[in-house]
Amino acid sequence: MSALRVTARPLIRRVVRYGRQDFRACKSTLPKSVAEYLSWKPTEPTAGVHVDGYVRSVRAQKRQHFVSLGDGTTIDSLQAVVPADQAEGLTTGAAVRLHGSWVPSRGQGQSHELQVQSADILGASDAKTFPLQKKYQSPEYLRTMPHMRPRLPYNSTLFRFRSEVIASLTRFFEGRQFIQTHTPILTASDCEGAGEVFNVANIGEKPQSNSEKNKSFFRRPVYTTVSGQLHLEALAQGLGNVWTLSPTFRAEQSDTPRHLSEFYMLEAEMSFTNDMASVMGLIEDMLRHIASELIGSRTVKELSTRTAEGLSDLAPVDQVERRWQGLMKAAWPRITYTDAIDILNASDEQFEIPPVWGQDLRTEHERYLAVHIGQGETPVFVTNYPRTIKAFYMKASEGDLGTPGHGETVECFDLLVPDFCEIAGGSMREHRLDNLMDSMKLHGMDTASEQVIANDGKERRMQNNLDWYIDLRRWGCPPHGGFGLGFDRLICYLSGVQTIRDTTAFPRWYGRCDC
Amino acid sequence: MSALRVTARPLIRRVVRYGRQDFRACKSTLPKSVAEYLSWKPTEPTAGVHVDGYVRSVRAQKRQHFVSLGDGTTIDSLQAVVPADQAEGLTTGAAVRLHGSWVPSRGQGQSHELQVQSADILGASDAKTFPLQKKYQSPEYLRTMPHMRPRLPYNSTLFRFRSEVIASLTRFFEGRQFIQTHTPILTASDCEGAGEVFNVANIGEKPQSNSEKNKSFFRRPVYTTVSGQLHLEALAQGLGNVWTLSPTFRAEQSDTPRHLSEFYMLEAEMSFTNDMASVMGLIEDMLRHIASELIGSRTVKELSTRTAEGLSDLAPVDQVERRWQGLMKAAWPRITYTDAIDILNASDEQFEIPPVWGQDLRTEHERYLAVHIGQGETPVFVTNYPRTIKAFYMKASEGDLGTPGHGETVECFDLLVPDFCEIAGGSMREHRLDNLMDSMKLHGMDTASEQVIANDGKERRMQNNLDWYIDLRRWGCPPHGGFGLGFDRLICYLSGVQTIRDTTAFPRWYGRCDC
Repeated sequence: MSALRVTARPLIRRVVRYGRQDFRACKSTLPKSVAEYLSWKPTEPTAGVHVDGYVRSVRAQKRQHFVSLGDGTTIDSLQAVVPADQAEGLTTGAAVRLHGSWVPSRGQGQSHELQVQSADILGASDAKTFPLQKKYQSPEYLRTMPHMRPRLPYNSTLFRFRSEVIASLTRFFEGRQFIQTHTPILTASDCEGAGEVFNVANIGEKPQSNSEKNKSFFRRPVYTTVSGQLHLEALAQGLGNVWTLSPTFRAEQSDTPRHLSEFYMLEAEMSFTNDMASVMGLIEDMLRHIASELIGSRTVKELSTRTAEGLSDLAPVDQVERRWQGLMKAAWPRITYTDAIDILNASDEQFEIPPVWGQDLRTEHERYLAVHIGQGETPVFVTNYPRTIKAFYMKASEGDLGTPGHGETVECFDLLVPDFCEIAGGSMREHRLDNLMDSMKLHGMDTASEQVIANDGKERRMQNNLDWYIDLRRWGCPPHGGFGLGFDRLICYLSGVQTIRDTTAFPRWYGRCDC
Repeated sequence: MSALRVTARPLIRRVVRYGRQDFRACKSTLPKSVAEYLSWKPTEPTAGVHVDGYVRSVRAQKRQHFVSLGDGTTIDSLQAVVPADQAEGLTTGAAVRLHGSWVPSRGQGQSHELQVQSADILGASDAKTFPLQKKYQSPEYLRTMPHMRPRLPYNSTLFRFRSEVIASLTRFFEGRQFIQTHTPILTASDCEGAGEVFNVANIGEKPQSNSEKNKSFFRRPVYTTVSGQLHLEALAQGLGNVWTLSPTFRAEQSDTPRHLSEFYMLEAEMSFTNDMASVMGLIEDMLRHIASELIGSRTVKELSTRTAEGLSDLAPVDQVERRWQGLMKAAWPRITYTDAIDILNASDEQFEIPPVWGQDLRTEHERYLAVHIGQGETPVFVTNYPRTIKAFYMKASEGDLGTPGHGETVECFDLLVPDFCEIAGGSMREHRLDNLMDSMKLHGMDTASEQVIANDGKERRMQNNLDWYIDLRRWGCPPHGGFGLGFDRLICYLSGVQTIRDTTAFPRWYGRCDC
């Protein structure tokens, strides 16, 4: 401490040198963002204000230039009137700070405008090469420059909406006392079989073969996760009801508007429940919560104003409105897969592939069900699919469902929505050890567990990469169930955007990982 | 529609078959969780209740068994008194539903207890092999079974705390109108140089060499991200102030309590600011918000009760309390790196490696500064490091800082906390195109951009994997800055847990990726 005493005086001078500006203390009472300015409507002009933003467009007249300014806080632009001699550098794209007065507007289209005294060019822009244009640019073209795309007013509004949905979800689950968890991204559990997973290696390493295992970074083959569900079940055993919103990965070579190689999955798991109705009730309540909370928001209004313009990139505005109304309705229909097959076969629709019990529903079948059972509005649960076409961890159906497939079906559901088909899926999990082992064998999976001691003699290693999952059934596994929902698909559905590639800032799919 | 009419009658019967149990409607007014029961203290016995949970321990007497029940909602146990003839299957670990009466307790240690009439064994447990024991088990040993570890009362409490911090963060940023974003996990931008990144390949593929690029899944080398910052800067340009809590990866072969191969980074980026004080103010306010909001919570109290037991796995309880108090204090000291070097040299501390201007601070230096400048309580900002030891994207210092290193330093900061050293770092970003290019050259990076047309003749591909980042400076880049904070380290710091490996459910580090 003696050294500190020696340096105490200069130290104090130095410590305060960098200032201690409190973020709250420096908050002005004046609006800061473009959104705040546009909703501020004083009857008298207010001098001495400034606005930060990007020049969206400029209309030059002899004595003054009309500048549209945006900053990502709203889809709308703020109009600034700039004297011609102050307009140098105010080119499309430029990042600027405009100083002036906020005054009731004489022009049409806005209640107020900024009369500019001076402009600071914070970041210049070469308008000739600026890649974002006022004229229509296709989503495909914009996707070639994901780093610039968020600067388009519609795109930034869409990403703001995504943020608001996350916050709404967080509130919903917190209110229900569900614990938010982080399931792992790198995993040794290749739960859905090889071929559609990404292999991970320390750079320069070769992918791991069995004989090379101990040389690799993790001493075993490791993949990017395809689902957090198995890990979420372990967490549900410890914590009760849990949820996660986490990146997941599929190395599918599909090139469709509904698939990404990297996407966010919203997954929830309920513990101590034997009742799939409560899992379906949870997802229903969750989506109703989001829709009810956000439908009146400025962001959603801004999105629907653009949707109303009728661009082919977006679903028709009345269709999108119907989606929101449908989510807010209570008691979504629930039918069994077996009944669904009957309904499909009894319909006079000509399906390309006729529905057959024991085979998965095709998109054309799902669409028919969503439109006719949900009456084109509410989502529809289809439950109790044949176990041969569903995952090994799903619990066998019980009780007197009275369907032809009874005993051969599992306690699961798909949630179908109009125009978009499957958006979520869930099930009760097989919590009984023997039944799980039987199901794994039925699905052709290896259940032999081989415990080994590692080189250092210390660690217990599990050779079968699902041993730990089987373990969860050995020492007190209550009945439990949960669901997974494609978060990017949900954003598509709620916004009317036609492809999942535009709901996330940096989409990755087969052949595409720009930036 | 005609087909629908034909099947209408049976359809309706079928649609309702699965019930439409509303999750809210079925919510009982009785407590559900163990935590709720323990805080429910009626003066009269209440019959006809039931509690779900796991048997933590059993003490068998001749006529009755005393069962400690837990369910992950609290670190505490509920005491259940079970008649001996109803106690079959109530073994350690078992998942059970106990039916009975909630009555004021005659015993000590709890105000109420459950007098059990009957027990349902929902998931049996073989107590002989149950791997979690009441006696002390070391964190190292418990880490060999991450799938079971959340069932320990302390671990589930810790993960509950992690969830509460996430929710608190979400509220903080929403209140400040920061947009929550999802930065990508897979990226072609190897922003910190090769060697410490994980390479990603479709399974069965060889790692990509340049000549093999077009054969690979993404047609270019792809890595798991080391930081979301560069992408966050693109989003900040579009959206204004942004944040993300996202997995990041390092393939470092370090085996320390402060490093993981997969960890969560909390990153925020502020747009239109030239003032690093506002970035430091943001992180200060954020941590103060979390500490103030959570310090009184039941979860934090439960954690500190365990900390007070003085186990070596946890930091001393008074130290942890000092951390919380320090975070809630205003105006954390801010000193420059240059002053820090002076202070270290003027001290009479014998450092293993003497501090030298131009070299990075070592842990022993950081610890001295945290203890002496922050007085062992508040965090300390050390700012303006030499640019040669910091990242290429940091903005050169300006103004009359008057330090010997002026002109050779960058606008950056590290946030040091007592006992833990660096917990966060941030900087202003070089937003000027020419200066950024100069800095990249100075750091030995390739700035040559080579645009090519892909095989199909349609796409513009960027060969230099940071071209897009340079691009952000071409068309209106405002001054901006931000920070990154190791989220798992924060959980360590706040909880008193001594290693980052125990703050996340499924930790991954060199050689370890279990489950």
